[in-house]
Amino acid sequence: MITMSQNSVGYVRPVMLDFKEPLVLSSGQVVENYQLAVETYGILNAQASNAVLICHALNASHHVAGINPDTQEIGWWDNMVGPGKPLDTNKFFVIGINNLGSCFGSTGPASINVKTGKPWGSDFPVMAVEDWVNAQLRVADYFGIKRFAAVMGGSLGGMQALSWAIQYPDRLGHCIVIASTPGLSAQNIAFNEVARRAIITDPEFHQGHYYDYQTVPKRGLSVARMIGHITYLSDDDMAEKFGRDRRNKAENGQYQYGYDIEFEVESYLRYQGEKFSKYFDANTYLSITKALDYFDPARQYGNGNLHQALAGVQAKFLTVSFTTDWRFPPERSRELVKALLKNKRDVIYAEIDAPHGHDAFLLDDPTYHRVVRAYFERIATQLTQGV
Amino acid sequence: MITMSQNSVGYVRPVMLDFKEPLVLSSGQVVENYQLAVETYGILNAQASNAVLICHALNASHHVAGINPDTQEIGWWDNMVGPGKPLDTNKFFVIGINNLGSCFGSTGPASINVKTGKPWGSDFPVMAVEDWVNAQLRVADYFGIKRFAAVMGGSLGGMQALSWAIQYPDRLGHCIVIASTPGLSAQNIAFNEVARRAIITDPEFHQGHYYDYQTVPKRGLSVARMIGHITYLSDDDMAEKFGRDRRNKAENGQYQYGYDIEFEVESYLRYQGEKFSKYFDANTYLSITKALDYFDPARQYGNGNLHQALAGVQAKFLTVSFTTDWRFPPERSRELVKALLKNKRDVIYAEIDAPHGHDAFLLDDPTYHRVVRAYFERIATQLTQGV
Repeated sequence: MITMSQNSVGYVRPVMLDFKEPLVLSSGQVVENYQLAVETYGILNAQASNAVLICHALNASHHVAGINPDTQEIGWWDNMVGPGKPLDTNKFFVIGINNLGSCFGSTGPASINVKTGKPWGSDFPVMAVEDWVNAQLRVADYFGIKRFAAVMGGSLGGMQALSWAIQYPDRLGHCIVIASTPGLSAQNIAFNEVARRAIITDPEFHQGHYYDYQTVPKRGLSVARMIGHITYLSDDDMAEKFGRDRRNKAENGQYQYGYDIEFEVESYLRYQGEKFSKYFDANTYLSITKALDYFDPARQYGNGNLHQALAGVQAKFLTVSFTTDWRFPPERSRELVKALLKNKRDVIYAEIDAPHGHDAFLLDDPTYHRVVRAYFERIATQLTQGV
Repeated sequence: MITMSQNSVGYVRPVMLDFKEPLVLSSGQVVENYQLAVETYGILNAQASNAVLICHALNASHHVAGINPDTQEIGWWDNMVGPGKPLDTNKFFVIGINNLGSCFGSTGPASINVKTGKPWGSDFPVMAVEDWVNAQLRVADYFGIKRFAAVMGGSLGGMQALSWAIQYPDRLGHCIVIASTPGLSAQNIAFNEVARRAIITDPEFHQGHYYDYQTVPKRGLSVARMIGHITYLSDDDMAEKFGRDRRNKAENGQYQYGYDIEFEVESYLRYQGEKFSKYFDANTYLSITKALDYFDPARQYGNGNLHQALAGVQAKFLTVSFTTDWRFPPERSRELVKALLKNKRDVIYAEIDAPHGHDAFLLDDPTYHRVVRAYFERIATQLTQGV
């Protein structure tokens, strides 16, 4: 039994929203109709001006805060969102949406394709960040939200927030981009590609139609997750957490000279890989890594120039990076900040000295949370003053 | 046809040396007899005082320099070793040995186990760095070399050089440790573990007895190599080499929205993975990554204290690191240098500002080569003066 913290949003179940209007994707393919899993916390005010959209990263979902009474799972950003928390649900109406193509209730590769009566599998279209934003726009319309007080996300979620500011400049007041990047580096793409190879070359993958064979490419998915996990943690953090600590020692304290788990870090990674491979859909993993690779607003909107791509942005920005994040290091956030400043946009940039690598954006570093809290307090004040 | 450089050691074929005396390993297991593939360049002087042993890293071999006339392959450190090169074969007698357990001619997992008449497979004992040094010692004895002028290696080869200085302090004058570390970090072990999981969970692995099934765990080995390769290059180097350059574009210049090769970096990595999986033995890969994980002279000889472990060292040291090497970064070399200085050993330490990450030790950065050249010139002078 999970104990609920004093300032939790409480028990919460997702609602499923059905959208019947076809959605044209970046690839040119069309999703005729789809379902999105959505959670909300707090109360939307009469002017619908206090809404905040939270965009999620690779393996997260609509379940941002609170506890799901059926699964007892705590929301992935529960330390950030709740009454009295940095994003205060006493003041804001917060929306979490499971992205189209994901595997936590929204339509995705594991859903039934009505045309075939079978799961989509790898026939499900590859999504781009822009496509998710377009799908999220319909949720905004559903709630009658003409303009979000803020759109906020970390990592891949930050890319969606940034894309909102470019695609729909008048639909958000503030854009909060955390531990993110305006485009993957060659090394980032390389890690994604290795993860994809691990999945695609798993014989249980069956060209993405593993559902038809009542199987799952668990081995590949597990290896993919292990690779990802290394990039989420800092070298120092791993040294601190695991060092060269050993889990199983031979009787004489010596090494085992075999391939069973020997070091703590091996045990941790294997566990993470296996756990992930039991709940996450391999086709979703593939598709989301492609969306990451493809994200490149400079190319998409600025002829290769980020400054130009951001020319139409109206939102004010909060950009946060973490010193030990080597997946999306501070210099990538600074690129974004510079391009915004060149456009004379309002930007607050916080580079947080935190030891936990990329994962820091999910943790409750006090300085980090203080920055986000102060930023939302300012937004709340502006809202009450009708700014 | 390969063109031979003017200062090449020329065409060279390995010799196979047979050792009949059983070798007791760190694991307690015994290799009853074994063969080592060896190449030599230059001429051993009458006092046998000008010998330099080159120790190799994960995927290299005895074929250090020159061209093998059968395969047309150039030695892996041909830019370093040859007449007039930094390690000058006009002055030194250089020995390359394929490590025991490797797959280029020396006895290893793919060799026939005389007890079963079948390949050893995963029954071949896991080696430690110390075991390789013990096997190399017999090659020294075979050539009548009482004391190497120097033992030299990069990466895992540097660990062997360091271990020589600890295990047999009176058998070498100089120890040259390049792009190496006195012990793997948790992150290093983590990458090795993911690579091993990719191989071991490949259904073609057959518990390491894939030879019996006329197959090879190519998919796993390929993924393992791709992971390794990312850690050999620097982030900047990858950005410079590949950036976000695309290989295959859809007709309209758009993305493909599929899983074929799209970015140059994907093409490069897949090629490297596939090439490797065709020539390298998976069991050897597994075993060598364990030797890397296990290497920990502080634990082995100093109750966890590197300074104490090095107390008996007599060799003079040259230690080289590269600024952009994030696999074994400069700070790990500095640990070694500090522990040596605390023992009042002679150490020269060069931290080379080079963009090519860990792989820099194989390349011919002018500053790097100048440092090594100057160091060997000093050794040569000492030899002629009978120091």
